[in-house]
Amino acid sequence: MAIKSLINGNSIDVASAQDRGLQYGDGLFETIAIENEFLLCWDEHIERLQLGCGRLKIPIPSEEKLIEEAQSLTSHIERGVIKIIVTRGQGGRGYALPLNVKTTRLISLYPWPEYSFENPGNGIKVRLCSYRYGHNPTLAGIKHLNRLEQVMARSEWTDTTIAEGIVLDNEENVIEGTMSNIFYIKDNTLHTPELSACGINGIIRQKVIALAAELSLEVRIDKISLKRLMDADEAFMCNSIIGIWPIILLGEKLLEVGEKTTRIKILLQKYNFISELS
Amino acid sequence: MAIKSLINGNSIDVASAQDRGLQYGDGLFETIAIENEFLLCWDEHIERLQLGCGRLKIPIPSEEKLIEEAQSLTSHIERGVIKIIVTRGQGGRGYALPLNVKTTRLISLYPWPEYSFENPGNGIKVRLCSYRYGHNPTLAGIKHLNRLEQVMARSEWTDTTIAEGIVLDNEENVIEGTMSNIFYIKDNTLHTPELSACGINGIIRQKVIALAAELSLEVRIDKISLKRLMDADEAFMCNSIIGIWPIILLGEKLLEVGEKTTRIKILLQKYNFISELS
Repeated sequence: MAIKSLINGNSIDVASAQDRGLQYGDGLFETIAIENEFLLCWDEHIERLQLGCGRLKIPIPSEEKLIEEAQSLTSHIERGVIKIIVTRGQGGRGYALPLNVKTTRLISLYPWPEYSFENPGNGIKVRLCSYRYGHNPTLAGIKHLNRLEQVMARSEWTDTTIAEGIVLDNEENVIEGTMSNIFYIKDNTLHTPELSACGINGIIRQKVIALAAELSLEVRIDKISLKRLMDADEAFMCNSIIGIWPIILLGEKLLEVGEKTTRIKILLQKYNFISELS
Repeated sequence: MAIKSLINGNSIDVASAQDRGLQYGDGLFETIAIENEFLLCWDEHIERLQLGCGRLKIPIPSEEKLIEEAQSLTSHIERGVIKIIVTRGQGGRGYALPLNVKTTRLISLYPWPEYSFENPGNGIKVRLCSYRYGHNPTLAGIKHLNRLEQVMARSEWTDTTIAEGIVLDNEENVIEGTMSNIFYIKDNTLHTPELSACGINGIIRQKVIALAAELSLEVRIDKISLKRLMDADEAFMCNSIIGIWPIILLGEKLLEVGEKTTRIKILLQKYNFISELS
């Protein structure tokens, strides 16, 4: 659980039971890696948070306060996770938006998750989930608090040797993992699903796409069928905390930790986008 | 806001900021009308809550505790609303389900909402929302805490003379309102959308369907296009709090408070399914 939390700057770990975050999931979040007190990709996380606020019509919280509060939690922290939650606060009659919104800022420090330290180097086993993500173009891409779909997909397995599950949408397109984005490489092209109808536009996803040219890789972002994914030369999952996890078992298909995947990871580390230990 | 709340039986109105209800919307709720201390359709609400727990793999909370706690809030309450929230509690690594789930029960008493008292008798104006509900068969029907879709649809208007908005799904089928189910009557048949892909299977919706035969009305539950709805003789919205609100303006179409709608309302009141004043 959280090591320490700040709610609107106060050192408490309880929120009003009437907060719309609890009542409706009416808010957004960001999960940020800390390495040697440094918040990796801070600007990008705040930018996505602001984009999400715009989409949900939530007033954008003060970035100054967010960074001040986050940094107050990260001093002397070598490795950890900061999670920021911003909700529409209390009030409103039913679903209607309150007239005067006072957003709630919840910033929590967590220990680094206990993922196997072998995942980044040796690769991971990934299952294919039976859950299907629904289409919600208004909510797609942003990191909102309605995460029951991820909870349901993640509830499908308890085998601890399976590190992640791949989820398709209800038109049978590959979308992402339960907590990470997916890429695959075929020949000299990096492929990742387009996320206009569902999925989260991950910060590391954005970085991988932006850095592809530097590695002389073409990028193709479109609808991806399971058949196409299964024809991959290499594949990996990514997010801000795990960095890059190469896939070595994708459903029934065996893969190897790919050379191009490794080069992508090294480049992300060089730019301090992901942890040195990822 | 809430007049009084109980969290796991304790008279407080704050929840752990780490509760999965806030973190992921990982829970369910029920909204129950109180009339002269009596909780209308209690059994049906608890049954749907239990169905939802099954669907989300949340342990079913003790009904004894729920009724005891709810009744402790309703004594001397002539008219009000009880909202029950049940979450998966704290814990779990990310989206993964906790090994030992301790659910959170939040029971809050609210004053009766300030809807216009003319709505049940004179009927309401209803708009057509541009938001479209996504398809999530696993989550359809149950009253879970991921309610951003309703918040987004409800955010489309502030005109207080518009009492409700009708929302279609992303295949252009009529689904329901932002907070209520919809029925229309054509000739001698009562029509309401089938909700296998999205929407909430409202308690009053279930009651209306069950009572139709008593009023010699046929019932047809299927996919309904906007065109079909617009050809209605009568139409109404319903939920546990509002009871029955006849529709007198549906987008651009004028309707009258229908005789069959009124008979349905009177029958629901006779059986104490909705408030006398609805």
